[in-house]
Amino acid sequence: MNTRVPTMSADHTRSVILDHIRAAGRVSRVELARLSGLTPAAISMIVRKIMSDGLVLEAGTGEATGGKRRTLLAINSASRYAVGVCLDYERLTFVVTDLSGHLVGRLTVDGPRDTEPEDVLRTIGRQVTKLVRDLQVDPARVVGLGVASPGPLDSRQGILLGSQPTSAWTGLRLRDRLEALSGLPVLIDNDATCAALGEHWTSRRAADEKAVTATVYMADGIGCGILTDGRVFHGMSSNAGEIGHTSLDLNGPLCRCGGRGCVELYAGPAAVVGAARRLPELVSELQLDQADGRNDFRRIVKAAARGHDQCRQLLEKAASHLAVAVVTLTNILDLDEVHLSGPGFTDAGAIYARVIQDGLDQTSFLRSIHPTQVKISHLGTEAAALGAAALVLQHHITPHSVRPTPLDRTENAVAS
Amino acid sequence: MNTRVPTMSADHTRSVILDHIRAAGRVSRVELARLSGLTPAAISMIVRKIMSDGLVLEAGTGEATGGKRRTLLAINSASRYAVGVCLDYERLTFVVTDLSGHLVGRLTVDGPRDTEPEDVLRTIGRQVTKLVRDLQVDPARVVGLGVASPGPLDSRQGILLGSQPTSAWTGLRLRDRLEALSGLPVLIDNDATCAALGEHWTSRRAADEKAVTATVYMADGIGCGILTDGRVFHGMSSNAGEIGHTSLDLNGPLCRCGGRGCVELYAGPAAVVGAARRLPELVSELQLDQADGRNDFRRIVKAAARGHDQCRQLLEKAASHLAVAVVTLTNILDLDEVHLSGPGFTDAGAIYARVIQDGLDQTSFLRSIHPTQVKISHLGTEAAALGAAALVLQHHITPHSVRPTPLDRTENAVAS
Repeated sequence: MNTRVPTMSADHTRSVILDHIRAAGRVSRVELARLSGLTPAAISMIVRKIMSDGLVLEAGTGEATGGKRRTLLAINSASRYAVGVCLDYERLTFVVTDLSGHLVGRLTVDGPRDTEPEDVLRTIGRQVTKLVRDLQVDPARVVGLGVASPGPLDSRQGILLGSQPTSAWTGLRLRDRLEALSGLPVLIDNDATCAALGEHWTSRRAADEKAVTATVYMADGIGCGILTDGRVFHGMSSNAGEIGHTSLDLNGPLCRCGGRGCVELYAGPAAVVGAARRLPELVSELQLDQADGRNDFRRIVKAAARGHDQCRQLLEKAASHLAVAVVTLTNILDLDEVHLSGPGFTDAGAIYARVIQDGLDQTSFLRSIHPTQVKISHLGTEAAALGAAALVLQHHITPHSVRPTPLDRTENAVAS
Repeated sequence: MNTRVPTMSADHTRSVILDHIRAAGRVSRVELARLSGLTPAAISMIVRKIMSDGLVLEAGTGEATGGKRRTLLAINSASRYAVGVCLDYERLTFVVTDLSGHLVGRLTVDGPRDTEPEDVLRTIGRQVTKLVRDLQVDPARVVGLGVASPGPLDSRQGILLGSQPTSAWTGLRLRDRLEALSGLPVLIDNDATCAALGEHWTSRRAADEKAVTATVYMADGIGCGILTDGRVFHGMSSNAGEIGHTSLDLNGPLCRCGGRGCVELYAGPAAVVGAARRLPELVSELQLDQADGRNDFRRIVKAAARGHDQCRQLLEKAASHLAVAVVTLTNILDLDEVHLSGPGFTDAGAIYARVIQDGLDQTSFLRSIHPTQVKISHLGTEAAALGAAALVLQHHITPHSVRPTPLDRTENAVAS
């Protein structure tokens, strides 16, 4: 009889060990036992298995401590690759990463805007194939394609449920179409969740040092991805993190979601641009073009950076609204870190980070117990695409730990 | 070499299996394999271990299906007991439960109000001893005392950090004092989290059917306990769930927390009573006594139940504010159920439940994807005390799965 407890339990352990090796770069078995709290015997067994799967290799020896030199383990980076793509209205960002999460190559092309979804999907399929070929990555080692898309979505079925990038995408069976067009297994998740995973996967920190973090992602909408112990908090339908519809004024203006006074109406790029366009002098001074909101937002942010008081104030006001929603998020999740990611924070991140940090320092309910730190993503516009690739790698390494809806877990467990 | 992966992984599996047996009442090994998705071999091994620990026993045979009759397993209810106490300003509620979570006995005494904390702690120690003796429970089988207290608190150190029940309790080393006075191991957690655990532990549902639920707990403040897969979502410092300080109006009145327009200012008993006391006719009609807020709240709720329009409207208005905060909570956590628990909902639950359900049906961001259902706790004022007892039992059964802060987990794992 096999006396090892299988399925999710061993899977989680395997994932924890791989995460420690990834974060450490090179690490000995003894050190792994210390980091993970597992026994040396358990470490030996797990390492034997992940080495035989080709995920980890021996990479030299460390310094001798007392007795003999210790063999070091490292992720076998070149053994697996994944492609990630971020589906943003303005831009499609493609990345290829290796098993360590290192960026192997990137590519950006124009976003879907008003192009027919089917044409965009063909472009994605073609660009994925081209990118893998141009990078001379062995296609047999590419384990899948991850797609970061605005939510809400059905990640199990791979279907978009919201009206982004445009309403033409609602109900689209994104996964099935892209599997057919790319020839790769496809996983999808929302952009904020992917960005959170991307942050973690490319960091030098192992999961269990991180406690609970939220990555606030601002593109056209505002969402967030929640990680606890380096793993995604999904919620019931994998759509957790809809911070954008936090009501800041229950008598405020009606939002597209049916609620009133949602933070998206005050804090996102569209709100800032809307306020600026109501100021004729500012419109002419900054040559706001009234058509391309993202572009107008960048002009306002750049003017603020040059010292333009009115623009700075517009951004600070928007940020102060987002700060209130982030305080609520922090109170509910007892967060230790909040990361800011996505195109909306690319240039404006510093202003938002300062105002949100002030809000947390002054009004978070738990501020006297522990601080909650705001950090700007170091991954720029690539966070979500990198996270989409990480999603695929994580699923490949520990298939049972991804998308753990109750149904999903049972199915996988029975199949194993 | 032991080839089983130890620590948290096996612990979680053990906890899942025990939870399935508890929820099912009586269940065969074959059925357990089906419910958990584990292999029959793994089930056999885990069952052998939990039977040798005396937690589970064989309890007759089920119907024959094809071949021989299957032996049924059941929780060995009388093998372990726990005491739970809920520390509420107005009332101390004590319960003793067996290992199945069944109530063995209860006791309520006056709450601390303005009594010196040390005197209250002595009362608790004395009542715990008396209750166990009166119920003729073997003291050797009582595994500990769980305390549900208003938060925030440091559950690892067992220290109260907030100003409830009164400010005299701030900084109190509750765990150490109660361990000395009761002679039992003590665990503490906040009342909302305990109420959530109490709901789950006394239900007939196993953890993995439940996805993500939040138990909104209203006493003097408003908090919530979050369960995912039947396990507590703790947050970084075990203080997740502070929904009471969700800002509904960033220009609203200043709250004790430092924020503005917090839902507690509009939605809790104190807010309802405050509004009623500003109406002289209502004060004289209901004989509001201006001193005992909880009592005045009950009078208003009873009048509303008798058809008093003005009282009903006061409560509906309060509930509509709480609804906005619950929608935010639901959007962030992607909840499938919201439970209402605690003394504030004892009589007023029906009105709050209706208004909150309406709010979710009309404005939850994910309402077109799945409904979020509001339920009133069936445990009345005992939910938190039952949950505190469940906390102790859960810790006894799977010591590594409770209070899983990163630090805690590593320490436990190394010690095992």
